[in-house]
Amino acid sequence: MRGAMIHAPGDVRFEPLNAPQILHPTDAIIRTAVTCVCGSDLWPYRGAEPIGEPHPMGHEYVGFIEEVGSEVTSVRPGQFVVGSFATSDNTCANCRNGFPSNCLHREFMSTCQAEYVRIPNAQGTLVATDEVPDEEFWPGLLAVSDVMGTGWWAADAAEVRPGSTAVVVGDGAVGLCGVIAAKEMGAERIIAMSRHESRQQLALEFGATDVVTERGEEGVERIKELTGGIGADSVLECVGTAQAMSQALHSARPGGSVGFVGVPHDVAVDGQELFFSHVGLRGGPAPVRRYLPDLIDRVLTRRIDPGKVFDLTLRLDQVAEGYKAMDERRAIKTLLTP
Amino acid sequence: MRGAMIHAPGDVRFEPLNAPQILHPTDAIIRTAVTCVCGSDLWPYRGAEPIGEPHPMGHEYVGFIEEVGSEVTSVRPGQFVVGSFATSDNTCANCRNGFPSNCLHREFMSTCQAEYVRIPNAQGTLVATDEVPDEEFWPGLLAVSDVMGTGWWAADAAEVRPGSTAVVVGDGAVGLCGVIAAKEMGAERIIAMSRHESRQQLALEFGATDVVTERGEEGVERIKELTGGIGADSVLECVGTAQAMSQALHSARPGGSVGFVGVPHDVAVDGQELFFSHVGLRGGPAPVRRYLPDLIDRVLTRRIDPGKVFDLTLRLDQVAEGYKAMDERRAIKTLLTP
Repeated sequence: MRGAMIHAPGDVRFEPLNAPQILHPTDAIIRTAVTCVCGSDLWPYRGAEPIGEPHPMGHEYVGFIEEVGSEVTSVRPGQFVVGSFATSDNTCANCRNGFPSNCLHREFMSTCQAEYVRIPNAQGTLVATDEVPDEEFWPGLLAVSDVMGTGWWAADAAEVRPGSTAVVVGDGAVGLCGVIAAKEMGAERIIAMSRHESRQQLALEFGATDVVTERGEEGVERIKELTGGIGADSVLECVGTAQAMSQALHSARPGGSVGFVGVPHDVAVDGQELFFSHVGLRGGPAPVRRYLPDLIDRVLTRRIDPGKVFDLTLRLDQVAEGYKAMDERRAIKTLLTP
Repeated sequence: MRGAMIHAPGDVRFEPLNAPQILHPTDAIIRTAVTCVCGSDLWPYRGAEPIGEPHPMGHEYVGFIEEVGSEVTSVRPGQFVVGSFATSDNTCANCRNGFPSNCLHREFMSTCQAEYVRIPNAQGTLVATDEVPDEEFWPGLLAVSDVMGTGWWAADAAEVRPGSTAVVVGDGAVGLCGVIAAKEMGAERIIAMSRHESRQQLALEFGATDVVTERGEEGVERIKELTGGIGADSVLECVGTAQAMSQALHSARPGGSVGFVGVPHDVAVDGQELFFSHVGLRGGPAPVRRYLPDLIDRVLTRRIDPGKVFDLTLRLDQVAEGYKAMDERRAIKTLLTP
C-alpha cells in the first residue's frame, strides 16, 4: 500500500509502505475512504517542529473496516466508521469523565494520509454509521473526526449558551467549524475575526453575524464596540499563538469564557490579569469521541455541513500538492481521495 | 470617631479620624457592628506591598445604617446590613452578568476598621436583614461579606458538583470557608491541605473528609493516591502564590476545574501545560453581592457557621494586636468589636 511520508521541511512524498497489521487485539485496520491535510501538519512542513527520521503523516480519517483484533466487537468488516485523531478506550476514568482525548490509553493518530490505517483502541474510538453513507457526506464526516469536533469543543469550552455573543479568533478550518458550533449552540451573535474574503464568506454562510478584520488590540477595540463596551460572553481561540490568546482574553467580557483549541506555542497567561478579568479559560485536544454520535447525526441529517471547509480536493497520491496549497494559503483545507 | 491607620510595616494605630460624610447621593454611612482583619491586610503590614502615606485599613463590615444619600431607597436608618468588600451598583452589564465585583462603578472598600464607614453604591451593595439579628450571628454575617463569599466563589469557580471530589489548597479563613462551600454544594469528598492542627480541626468540623499535610509535588502525589491516580474534580486555590497555583493545577484531574481566589503574586500559567491538562481555570475577586441573600439565609438558619473562623476577638481599639496575632499565626482571623 502507499502513504505520505515527510522527509524534511517542504518535502512530503507519497511512497510504497508496509501494509498496517493488527498489532494488538484491540486494533482495527481500515481502508481509507477520504483523508486530508490539517493545519497542524504545516508545523513540521514549515520547519517549525523537528522532523527527525522520515515518518508518516495524517491524523484525520473515515473509512471501511478491513479487519479487527480479537477484542474488538463493536464494529465489523465492511462497516463505515468515523474516529478521532486521539484514540481512546472509552472506559477509563478520564473517558468516563468526558475527556477521551485524555484517555489513559490514548494514542495520537499519525499515519492517516495512507490507503490503509491501523486504529489502536478501535472498540472505544470508532463509531460505525448505520449504513454506508452516500459519498457526498464523506467530507463532512471526515471533518467531524477532527476540525468539526475541535470547533465544537472550542464552543463548548467557551460555554456558548443560547442567546449569547461569541467571538471566533482564527479563520482556519477549526475556526470556521467553531462558527458552526456556536450557531448550533444558539449564539445570537457570532463575530468572526478574519481578513481573508473567501473565509469571511464561509464564516457568514456558517452563521457568523459580523466580521472583524482588525487584529490584536485594534481587533479587541472593535469587539468592545460591537458588544456594548464590555466584550463577548464566549471567545473561541482557534490559533495557538500568544497574540491570538491575548486577543481572545481581552475580547471576553468580565466573567466571560475562553475556549482554546490551537496547540499553544510560547503562550503564558498572567495570573493577576486573568484574576481581575474573571474570565474562565479551558482548552486542550478536543474530546471528539464524546461528540461523535451527535455530530455524525447532525451531518447525516444535513443540519450542518462542515465538509465545506474543504476547498481543494486532490487524489491521495497528490498529497504533496495538498500541503503546498495550504502552506501558500491557496486552500483552507485539502481533501484527499484514495 | 476613631479607626485604624497603617503608618508603616508593622505599625497599625487606632486614631481619631474625621467622621465619614455622605459624598454622593448613592452613599450610605453605617455604624460598625463588627469588623475584622483580613489575611490580605497582612501584605502591607509585612512590607510586601508599598504603603505610601498613612491610610485607613479594612474592607469587611456589617453594621447599622446611620444615614443614606438621596438616591438610596433600598435601606433605611436603623437597619442591619451586610455588604461586600467590592461595592457595586447591581444594575450595570457586569452586575447583570453575575460579576458585581467587576461592576463598572466598583469601589473597593478600604476604611472599615473604624467606628463609622461610608459605603459607596449603597443601593446595589448593601443587603438588609429582615430584623436586627442576634449578636451571635454577627461574626457569621461578617464572614459572609468577604471570606465566606470568597470561599463560595472558589467552590463555584471550581465547579463543585454533588458527589464530586474537591481539594482545598490553603488553610486560611478563605480556604476553611471553601470547605464549608464545597460541603454545601454536595461534594462527597473534601480534601483539606493543611499542616496546622487547629486549622485541620476546623476543616474537619466544616466537612473535610481528608487532610493532606504534604505540600508541593509531594502534596500532589498524595492527592493522586486519594483519587484513584487521576486527581480531583475541583480544586479551590485559596493562597495566591505560584507554588499554590502549581499545586492546584496538578491536583486537578484531566478536565477538572480550578477556582483561584487568592490575589496572584508572580503567577504565570503555561499555556501548553494547561492545554494538555484539559483543566478549566477561573478566578478573581469574589462576586459576593450575588451570593449575599443566599449566604445570609444559610447563616441565619444555622445551616452554616463561618463565624467560627474568628478564633480571636478583640475590641476595635486593640486592632494593632489583632494584626500582630495574625502575622505571628497565633490567630486565623481576628474579630474586632467597637
